[in-house]
This record gives sequence, C-alpha cells and structure tokens, in this order.
Amino acid sequence: MILETVSTPADVKKLPPEQLKILAAEIRSELINVTASNGGHLASNLGVVELTIAIHRVFDCPEDRIIFDVSHQSYVHKMLTGRRQFMHTLRKYGGLSGFQKRSESKADPFGSGHSSTSVSAAAGFAAADKIAGRKNITVAVIGDGALTGGMAYEALNNCASYDNMVIILNDNGMSISPNVGATSKLLSRIRVSKKYFGFKRLVYKAFMAVPGIGKGLVNMAVGFKNWAKRHLVHENLFEQLGMHYFGPLDGHDISAMEDVLREAKADGKCSVVHVCTKKGNGYAPSEKNPAFFHGVSGFDRETGAVKEGEGKSYSSVFGETLTRLAFADKRICAVTAAMEYGTGLAPFAKAFPDRFFDVGIAEEHAMTFSAGLAAGGMKPVFAVYSTFSQRAYDQLIHDVALQKLPVVIAMDRAGIVGSDGPTHHGMFDMSYLNAIPNITVWSPYTETELKVCLKRALDLDTPSVVRYPRGNVPEGQSMSDIDYAVTDFGQSEFIYTVLITTGSETAEAYRACEIAHANGTNVRLIRLIRVKPLPDISHLIKNARVIVTAEEGMVKGGIGEGIAAMCASKQLRARVTVCGATDFLPHGDGGTLRAMAGIDSTSLARKLCE
Amino acid sequence: MILETVSTPADVKKLPPEQLKILAAEIRSELINVTASNGGHLASNLGVVELTIAIHRVFDCPEDRIIFDVSHQSYVHKMLTGRRQFMHTLRKYGGLSGFQKRSESKADPFGSGHSSTSVSAAAGFAAADKIAGRKNITVAVIGDGALTGGMAYEALNNCASYDNMVIILNDNGMSISPNVGATSKLLSRIRVSKKYFGFKRLVYKAFMAVPGIGKGLVNMAVGFKNWAKRHLVHENLFEQLGMHYFGPLDGHDISAMEDVLREAKADGKCSVVHVCTKKGNGYAPSEKNPAFFHGVSGFDRETGAVKEGEGKSYSSVFGETLTRLAFADKRICAVTAAMEYGTGLAPFAKAFPDRFFDVGIAEEHAMTFSAGLAAGGMKPVFAVYSTFSQRAYDQLIHDVALQKLPVVIAMDRAGIVGSDGPTHHGMFDMSYLNAIPNITVWSPYTETELKVCLKRALDLDTPSVVRYPRGNVPEGQSMSDIDYAVTDFGQSEFIYTVLITTGSETAEAYRACEIAHANGTNVRLIRLIRVKPLPDISHLIKNARVIVTAEEGMVKGGIGEGIAAMCASKQLRARVTVCGATDFLPHGDGGTLRAMAGIDSTSLARKLCE
Repeated sequence: MILETVSTPADVKKLPPEQLKILAAEIRSELINVTASNGGHLASNLGVVELTIAIHRVFDCPEDRIIFDVSHQSYVHKMLTGRRQFMHTLRKYGGLSGFQKRSESKADPFGSGHSSTSVSAAAGFAAADKIAGRKNITVAVIGDGALTGGMAYEALNNCASYDNMVIILNDNGMSISPNVGATSKLLSRIRVSKKYFGFKRLVYKAFMAVPGIGKGLVNMAVGFKNWAKRHLVHENLFEQLGMHYFGPLDGHDISAMEDVLREAKADGKCSVVHVCTKKGNGYAPSEKNPAFFHGVSGFDRETGAVKEGEGKSYSSVFGETLTRLAFADKRICAVTAAMEYGTGLAPFAKAFPDRFFDVGIAEEHAMTFSAGLAAGGMKPVFAVYSTFSQRAYDQLIHDVALQKLPVVIAMDRAGIVGSDGPTHHGMFDMSYLNAIPNITVWSPYTETELKVCLKRALDLDTPSVVRYPRGNVPEGQSMSDIDYAVTDFGQSEFIYTVLITTGSETAEAYRACEIAHANGTNVRLIRLIRVKPLPDISHLIKNARVIVTAEEGMVKGGIGEGIAAMCASKQLRARVTVCGATDFLPHGDGGTLRAMAGIDSTSLARKLCE
Repeated sequence: MILETVSTPADVKKLPPEQLKILAAEIRSELINVTASNGGHLASNLGVVELTIAIHRVFDCPEDRIIFDVSHQSYVHKMLTGRRQFMHTLRKYGGLSGFQKRSESKADPFGSGHSSTSVSAAAGFAAADKIAGRKNITVAVIGDGALTGGMAYEALNNCASYDNMVIILNDNGMSISPNVGATSKLLSRIRVSKKYFGFKRLVYKAFMAVPGIGKGLVNMAVGFKNWAKRHLVHENLFEQLGMHYFGPLDGHDISAMEDVLREAKADGKCSVVHVCTKKGNGYAPSEKNPAFFHGVSGFDRETGAVKEGEGKSYSSVFGETLTRLAFADKRICAVTAAMEYGTGLAPFAKAFPDRFFDVGIAEEHAMTFSAGLAAGGMKPVFAVYSTFSQRAYDQLIHDVALQKLPVVIAMDRAGIVGSDGPTHHGMFDMSYLNAIPNITVWSPYTETELKVCLKRALDLDTPSVVRYPRGNVPEGQSMSDIDYAVTDFGQSEFIYTVLITTGSETAEAYRACEIAHANGTNVRLIRLIRVKPLPDISHLIKNARVIVTAEEGMVKGGIGEGIAAMCASKQLRARVTVCGATDFLPHGDGGTLRAMAGIDSTSLARKLCE
C-alpha cells in the first residue's frame, strides 16, 4: 500500500508520477471508510483528492500555507500532513476536527467552518509575509459556492498585489446544493470556453520538448496568445479584478495541475488557478447524489445506503408547516442562503418556486432582501442556521429591527450541534437577539409548539425569530398554549427551588428535576416558549430561594442573566445561578459537551440541591 | 425662484428642460445653506443634484421606489419630495433625518445609513412587485464606494432576472476617501473606454431626427454595435453578472441621463446605468476638498472655513498613539474599512504605508484579513466605528475570538453619536462583545487611559477591544492605573449607594453623583476602565443597598446586567437598577438622547436618591 509510506508532504513529492493514481485510489478508499463510520463531508473530499496531492507536490507545507475555505474538504490534506493515523477519531470528542484547526497541526495555518473567509485570511498571511520579508507562498483553496459570499469578493478586491498568493478555485458547480446566481453562470461560461488554456498547455508540451530553445518558443507563442486574448477574448471576473487567471483545468489530472500550480507559484501577481472537479468523484453512490453525500452521518460502504433516520426533524416540521401555511397566504415567501435541504425548505421550493429564493451563501443579502420583501408587502421567512445568522447581524439590526419590518427568521440548529464543533454550534443567537429592540423570539420545544410559534410569528407585523435545535422533535410531548410551561415536582406550596430553561435544553432540565426530586428537593420547572420579551413569570418564582437557569447558549446576555437581573432589580431573595456556556465548546457528542458546559442533568440537579 | 414652485416629483416633470439648470443651481444654494448651519453630508449631495432631478423626471415616485445606498446623498431627493420646507430641521432632534427613513415619507421606501444594502433591498421590492403583479420600477442608487462592500456583490449576483429594477451606479471615484482596490480600477477602466456609449448616444441623436424611421435606424445601428461589442469589446463586471449596462454618462447632464434612464426603465432586464459625478460639484471649497466636505458639522458659507474644533478627539489621540508605538514595534499594522480620516489613522498611513491597509467599505474582510495578519505574526489594529463593527460580528467570533488571535479592535464612536441617529449610534458593542469568549474589552475615558489601554491591548497575545466615544477627550482628568476608578461623594464608611458606569457616560454619572450628594445621599462612583472581564469590584459594593448602573449602550447583555446577575448569584442585598438604552435612539443632540434613555445626570441622580 503506497499510502502506508506517505505521511508528510515530502513523502508525496518523492512518489513517481505513475504511482499517484494508486495513491489517490487508496486515499479515496480510506475517505469512504472513515465517513461511513464517523460521518462527515464525503463528497467534497472525494472531489479534491488529486488537487490536494498536486498542491502538496508543488508547495512546501507548512512553510507555504494551505488554507481551505470552509475546510470540510481538508480530510485529504489531513491524511497527507501526518494525521492519517488519527482519521478514525475524526469528528469525535477529543479527536480530529472535521475542519482545519490551528491547534491541531502546523499544516493548518487558519481554522474555518464558515464560508468565504479563506481569501481574506490568505491575504493577511501574504501581507504579513511581505512585511516580514519571508519568501513563502500562501494558497487559498476556495469552492465556487463560497464565491457567492460577498466577503470573498471583498477579499478578491484587495489581493491583486500579492504575488506571494495563489488562489485555487475548486469549481464543482455546487456549494452544498447546486449553485445559484450570476457568478455561477459566469463560471460555467468560463468553463465552456476552454480555448485559451488548452492552447497554452499544448504549446508548452510541444515546444518544451525542443532542446535548448523550447522555453523561448513557449514564451513567444504564449506572448502572442496573451496579446490575442487581451484583444479578442473576454476578460473574466478575476482578470478584471487584476489577477492572473490560469484555467480551467481538469481537477482530476494531477500532472496538469502540478504544471500550472508551479507556474502560478512563480507568477509575479496574485494568481487564480481554476480547476474543475467532480464532487463525490470515485465512489458511485456519491457521484450519483453528491448533494446528499455532502455531509452524511454514517452509511453502508458497499451500498451507500444511509440508515433511515427515525422520527421527524425540527427542520422538516418547519418546512412542511411553512409550505402548508403558504397555500393559504400568498404573501409568504421563503429565503435561504444555499440551504434549501438543510433547512427543510425543499417542499416549499417545489410547491412555490416563485416565492422561493435561494440567494447562494449570502446571509447578508438574504437578510436585507427579506427586509425588502417585507417592505414590499410580503411575509418573508428567512431560514438559516443560528451560527450562519451571525453573518447577518448588522443587517438584522439595521434593515429589519430598526425599521420594524415583519421578517420571520427561522433559526435552525440553535444550541449545540455536536460533531461539527465550535464553528457550527448555535450558541450566540439568544444573547445577540436579546439586545436588539423590536424583535420577538420564540424557542419552541415540541412539534406543536414549533407550528404554533411559526404561525404566531407570521401573524406579527414586526420582526420575529423562531429558534429550534438540530435533530428530531421529541415524541409524545404536550404543548402549552401560553408562552411558558410549568411542571411542578412536588407539592406547589412547598416548592422553593425553580429551574428555568428553554428549547433544546428541556430534556436535560426535566431529568435534572426528576433527579433532584428523587433526592428530596421539590422543584418547579419553568420552560420558556417565548424568550423575548420574557413572559411575566414573577408570580411563579416569588417564593423561590434557589433559582437555577439552564440554556444551550452563552451565559452573558442570555435568558438566565436577564432573569437574574430582574431578580436583582426586584430584590427577590433567591440566589440565582445562571448555567450555560462561558467558552467555545469543542466538537463531540451532545452529552459530553453539555457536561463540559455544566448544563447536563447531573450538574443541574446538583445545583438544584445545593 | 423656480424651486418655490417645485415640491413634488410631478412639479419636477412639468419644468421645461431649459429651467433645469437654474433649478439645480437653486438646490445647490439651499444645500450649502442647510449644511453650513446644521452640518451634514454636503459633498455627496452636491454631486447628485442633476442625477436626482433626472430620476424624478423619469420615474414616478413613490409608486416607483427610489432607494439611495447609505442615503446621506438623499437631501435633494427630500427637497423634491415634499420636504423642502423642513430642511432647516435636518439632523436636529425631531427634525428630518440625514438619511432616508420610511417613517418620514412615502418617498423613502427603505431606510439606510450603512453601506451596500440598496441593491438587496431593491431586489426584495422587485421580487415582491413581481409576486404581487405590480408594474412599478425599483431604483437603487449606489456609489462606487459602496460597491467595495461584499454585500452589494451578493445582491448583484442575485438580481439579473429583475426587469423591474434599475441600478444607478453613482461613480465619483470616492467613497468617503478616494476608493481602493481592484473594483475601483475596474470602474476607472470602464470610464476611460467611453467608446460604446458615446457611439450609442451619437447614433440616437442623429437618427431620431429622421422623421418616421428614426427609431428603426437607431435599433439597427445599435444592434450592430451590440453585436460588435459582444464579440470585440470586453464585457464589464455588470454584464458578466447578467445585467444590461448603460454608460458611462455625464452625471451632470440631465438630458442625457433622462434619455438613458428612460431606456433602462423600459429594458427587459435588470439594468445598470453608470453615471460619473463630481463629488462636491458646484461649490468651490467642496470641489477642492470633497473628502473634507463629505460630512461636516457646520461651516462658513462664503469661505468654506470650518470652525476649528477645540480640543483633541479620541480618534486623533488613538491615531497618534498608534503611530508612535509603531515606530518601536515593526509588527504593528493598521487596518481600516474606508475610514482613514474618520478613525484618525492618517498619520499612521503616512508614516507606515507598507503597514497600513485600507480595504474599502469591507468590514468583514477587514476583520478576517486582520486575523490573517495576526496569525502571520503581525500585531494588527482594526480601527472601526462601533456601528460598522456589527458587519464583522461573525468574523470576530469565527476568525478572531475562536482562534484567540491577537487582533486589536479600536472601536471608535462607541455610544451615542448624535445627529447621525440610530444607524450610527454605537449601542450594541458592549452587549455583543460580552457574550464572545477570549476577548478583553477596555472602555477608557481620559486621554491617558486611552493610551494605556491601547498599549495593554497590543501587549496581549489574545483578542482585545479598546472602545471610545465620538468627540473630544476630556481635559484635565486624572487617570487610573488599575482597571477601575473610584470616587466617593461622602465619607466612605457611610456610603450605601453606588453608581457604576464606564466610558462616555462618565461625565453624566459624575454630575449625577454631585446632585445626589448635594441632596444628602452619599454616593460611590465606580468607573470601569476594563469592562470585560469585569474587574472584581465586589469589595466596593458589598455594603451597598442601592446600586445603579449607567452605560451608553443597550441594557440587555450590557455591563449593568452583568453586575446585576453577579449580585443575584452572590445574594447581595442591594437593589440593582440597570440604566441604558432599551430601544433604538433617534437622531438629535446627546443631551436629549441621554434624557430619553434615562441616562442623563438628572435621571440618574433621581435613581440614586430613590
């Protein structure tokens, strides 16, 4: 097995070209194994096997810095930079991250998880290297999907002068779903007009064979071609932004990519190398359905069959409910930033294509576009993961909340998400929403509550958020018709201990109350369904001596701190203990992470009994 | 006076073409008058006088929606849409806003203040109109500066299909300062290659004179030219993004703009009309120095002389200090998002051009670029207004804080800013920063403190923020070498009332203590210099019965709520009253706005004596 002999970029460079195909096949096989058992981003990694090999044959990592955008496609990079033996720990608590991570390896110069940051970070490194007089190169590998994010454009607008920077555009025509928007069409037009680069490669191969004068002939021919190109052929976006453009190349032809990457590396400008890859390449099930295999949570290697999820996810309840409501109300529109499937909007998109807007990985635009829709009389619902909603924080304040426009934000993946880790946990939304005026926030727990809250949100003529966690709605739970639900563990007149919680933390909180009660402490559990403005619960806590609050979110600015402040202003005599996250949580299973944050049932029960 | 007869778009349409120049001159005169007395954005409004007239002659406002990007250039629009008689109230409390504002007039379909939102909002309206079957047009007027913001690109990527939308690119080669980056060069290249549009106009003028068949000839000629253009001339960015491009045009030639805007209005695609205007046009002092006259706070109409500001601003203290420190430490870099002057960085830019980075109106990129610089071993300082820092909220969490990279954020204009109003007050930073792990936050008040905090921030190897208000540093104030300062009003052993404050709220807090003390209440004033993590002040408040906190920021998640929560967790017996903003504050003078929020000295004194 060749892969056994390859654990560093130096090893990759040593291999004779004819062994590279075998290496790629071996890598693919391991990728399929690890994602089949651990879950992860299979299709995007299968697409960049050859590209990653070519990168490590040309550049000297870690001196040359390789930054993957989003970096869910960095598994091959991890395998080739000393981490292959840990791949079985991928995405598990304490194991390898599913993304690049500075603390994991010197080969990861910059961590990631959100889209479109790589060119900015690379430009920062390139600028630092110039100031320090270092001669290394910084490489950003960015997908065509990430190019729909405005931040990437801001960066492209600022990096033409960095000759120590190479941008590799990994173009598979998809982000998570197939791409949208004009940029996508633009790229496909560039792909179709392969004339230029084909010519250059041809000339190169033919003339370099001529001993002695080959290089001169190449230069002459290329010079002529460049002149012709400048005067006859359209310049593409990258050239218009002042960069040198190479491509498009076959992203599964290692030798071709090596040649061009060497040229780009030596080039006296910031260069863009455009490679076309096939997402899911080399594994029949994922080639057939790359969007599905973008991120999977384990599957059968032989058949590609995924264990059918049991139960119904919050996302699908949301999507189906919204679709149903949209039949009755023609003003309801749905907006997503490249997350039609993840947010459960596929049925809506199918039923109402004219009222469905996938704007690409562009949360900023999505939010203000929604504000425009609302100002134009529509009822827009922007479905977005909590962590990605952070991208539209200013737009939410400036365009939605300040103008009191009735935009509904369906905030999915609120709370701990598990193996995707700190870049994907939805820990900040309650804190940041609390400070913004004019926004109503619901945090439902049961299926019925989610439906009711969504309906209430659509009936408001002011901004609102319905936030709900990753995963399945609990079964057999009752619902509350008011803004909170109360469960007493013990006779209500003898209860001096209150636990206040919301949303995804409900199950742990309930168990904590059971434990505490079994240990002799009577407890009242108050579950908030509306979290902003806080419902008036003062009559429910006025006799309390101990109040514990628990939320899957940051302590600072969260619900608990609000309740504590209320108690301090009313001079209630209770001691208030606020439980939640005070630091970033790593990746891992929800149970472990909750325990780390002190919001697992055992920790909470202990605090209730103190 | 023609302007006397013009108060609506219909009046503008009625005027014979030969009177338009006079109208423009009259408008300019009034613009100079109002900004000379009230302050405001003079130069950008002088630049769009003719453009705004042309817009109102072609489009039917308010049915057609006119959305100005940032909208500080909407004064002329205000004058022509029924608000001329209120122009003397501009930017004053209760008067006209310096920006478009939905609640002010039907002619303002979408409010603004931050950059690069107009195309997104316009796309939202255009989509809503299509769904509703309305036939009106939405116009976005966006400057070339705003095009450096990634959000504008996200929007451009999504609006090619809206034939009911016209984007007017108001190209003056500047944002607030002259523009930077590749887009700017791109635009100037388009400007230089005027061939295409010149031809079209020429043909139009010549052939339309031919009775009967003029239009046909024009179409034929233009058709040929378009074919030639497609095959011979570079497509520009807008065409590559799928839009129809018209221009560039002389933005001071009303008749030319009218012709083209009519064409764009009827066009079957989203069209971009590129007009070149001269910022500050028609007033000698502002033509000479348009960047200076971008935003002024009053000047002498005859000479253009501005009353010399007395005292030293926080911004200039920051800029000078950073420049001084950068001589000793070659790793210090400064980053700004098009705010070289506003943030006081001009001396730094002059002294260290290689370590100064103006990235355009691109806060997202600026933050992650800074993170890249820090990861590359530099000490980047990103100077940004508090309100604009909201644009980089996600990048601060994801790229800076999570990776603990030593980026220093110099957060200017923290707190109430006055007449720019709700889009520009810096009210959210303390709340949002409090929830983000790994960030240290200082809120200095005196000149010495600002210098010391900046030095401390640069010495940290983790992320930090130094936040300071708009305006001048106070004179003759002492400083504290620790993280808080204590002043007792009355004998310390008889003090049961504590006022806790920070930063720009200090002066009011101090006066409140004086008032309360004069009324017989002993008070301890604790001024926090480091606000995150909160310094341990428990020994200073343990005897308090009344604690009042006051901050120029949102109550939710702010400093006061944190202190209240601390009291509740420690069961301190004090009643804690948290003072700060709970809603958006309008524009107006600081005194009025502080009173609205209940953080003026009188309100605070009342709470201290309760």
